[in-house]
Amino acid sequence: MKPIHSFKTLVWWSETDAAGIMHFSSIFKLCEWAEEDFIKKLTGKTFKEATAHRIIFPRVHASCDFIKPLYAHEEAKVNITSISLGKSSITWIFDVYNESRGYLAAKCKIVTVAVDRFQMKSVEIPKDIRDLLEKAGASNR
Amino acid sequence: MKPIHSFKTLVWWSETDAAGIMHFSSIFKLCEWAEEDFIKKLTGKTFKEATAHRIIFPRVHASCDFIKPLYAHEEAKVNITSISLGKSSITWIFDVYNESRGYLAAKCKIVTVAVDRFQMKSVEIPKDIRDLLEKAGASNR
Amino acid sequence: MKPIHSFKTLVWWSETDAAGIMHFSSIFKLCEWAEEDFIKKLTGKTFKEATAHRIIFPRVHASCDFIKPLYAHEEAKVNITSISLGKSSITWIFDVYNESRGYLAAKCKIVTVAVDRFQMKSVEIPKDIRDLLEKAGASNR
Amino acid sequence: MKPIHSFKTLVWWSETDAAGIMHFSSIFKLCEWAEEDFIKKLTGKTFKEATAHRIIFPRVHASCDFIKPLYAHEEAKVNITSISLGKSSITWIFDVYNESRGYLAAKCKIVTVAVDRFQMKSVEIPKDIRDLLEKAGASNR
Repeated sequence: MKPIHSFKTLVWWSETDAAGIMHFSSIFKLCEWAEEDFIKKLTGKTFKEATAHRIIFPRVHASCDFIKPLYAHEEAKVNITSISLGKSSITWIFDVYNESRGYLAAKCKIVTVAVDRFQMKSVEIPKDIRDLLEKAGASNR
Repeated sequence: MKPIHSFKTLVWWSETDAAGIMHFSSIFKLCEWAEEDFIKKLTGKTFKEATAHRIIFPRVHASCDFIKPLYAHEEAKVNITSISLGKSSITWIFDVYNESRGYLAAKCKIVTVAVDRFQMKSVEIPKDIRDLLEKAGASNR
Repeated sequence: MKPIHSFKTLVWWSETDAAGIMHFSSIFKLCEWAEEDFIKKLTGKTFKEATAHRIIFPRVHASCDFIKPLYAHEEAKVNITSISLGKSSITWIFDVYNESRGYLAAKCKIVTVAVDRFQMKSVEIPKDIRDLLEKAGASNR
Repeated sequence: MKPIHSFKTLVWWSETDAAGIMHFSSIFKLCEWAEEDFIKKLTGKTFKEATAHRIIFPRVHASCDFIKPLYAHEEAKVNITSISLGKSSITWIFDVYNESRGYLAAKCKIVTVAVDRFQMKSVEIPKDIRDLLEKAGASNR
């Protein structure tokens, strides 16, 4: 099935560790980069204004199964395979591929919650963002 | 109950993000730092020789529930509350506290597997490390 | 003047700090990413085999002047404006731009040295890499 | 000569790269950690309130000479050997040691400027911070 979004990057040297592979914490960053790349392309200025100015999406849960390594200087691809929307939460599912070797490297899940950055409390996902996400393939929970 | 190990650090500016709080991927690093601090104190040179030279412990799973923020320059404490040993895997449970504000900030679980770094395949946990971990409070699964 | 190479990326949330801007250490990473992107495109498999297997290029010097901020989710562009080759050292000059706001954000210089990763001592830049770098616009010191 | 401040940490696995050594960008973080540890011990709550709420100290310059490696799990020590105060700028000099191997690993210099975080413009170093820094051994330029 076609992913909702696909993001590619090199396995940067700075994100590897002494085992020669991408550090596990950087695989979580990779997923977040895919999300940011997706949101940027989806919303352009709207998201930036909405999120940079008032609403942020801190993570309330993150988990990954690390299956096979991403070695330095190889190509990684992150597919966003599912986005499901709650009232204020968004659940993202990611498949991380080692493109250079052609295998699945990790499967990850991240749950974010819309938060008012000044009051630091959860709020409903802004309607314009919800509409955009639905149009892009997000489902409602 | 007394944790198996307790590790403290400041919330370094470099590990925060534009929301003013520790980035979620750095909370995974925090747990790993606690593990390294624990292993270093537990084994001294033995671990270093064992792991740096032949056996590494890559993560096969990592998950966190992020409950409340760790703000820049505050004190964080990571308690290792449980270590359970399989044949080659080690399951670590961490409670991350915001010491400056006195609340639980995150609960995390990391599963590592003993891997021969040259053959990149899993091996049994070396007996001397297993013995040391059991003496420190690890349980067998 | 046309730069030797140009690399673009979003200012990832993970690379920002509590001031809302890219952390200064991540601007050094940005320059290295530009270098890796350049080398990858320049050499394809050759570099990977040369460097991943035997020769690495650790940094012996790095400096940056930070002029203006890179804010979260904005676009950054790194221009490699000069590469000068010594016997074993390579001096890279980078101009980092905030593309979203249209200003120069930082000017950086990184000096790397070709090192045999197994003997951990400096060696001459491999001839095939030197040739490729010269063809791409590098000058000899 | 006795350093103004001394900060120790393990070379965390997360801060190493595929060469098995601390990534050069993390050595800049190490220096900043030493600065934060110093400031925290020096000022307690005062600094936190001053900086977290209004004034931040972004870096305008950073440079390092990397002399010898810091390997994973070894002990690093950062000495702050000099602090010199301008009107709004602070110049920090750091010597980074590999304590496990007993050698100097890097020499770094970081220049920060007091900035009002809401107006994003430079201001004079707050008098109470200047006094504390002078008492700790900082000199005036």
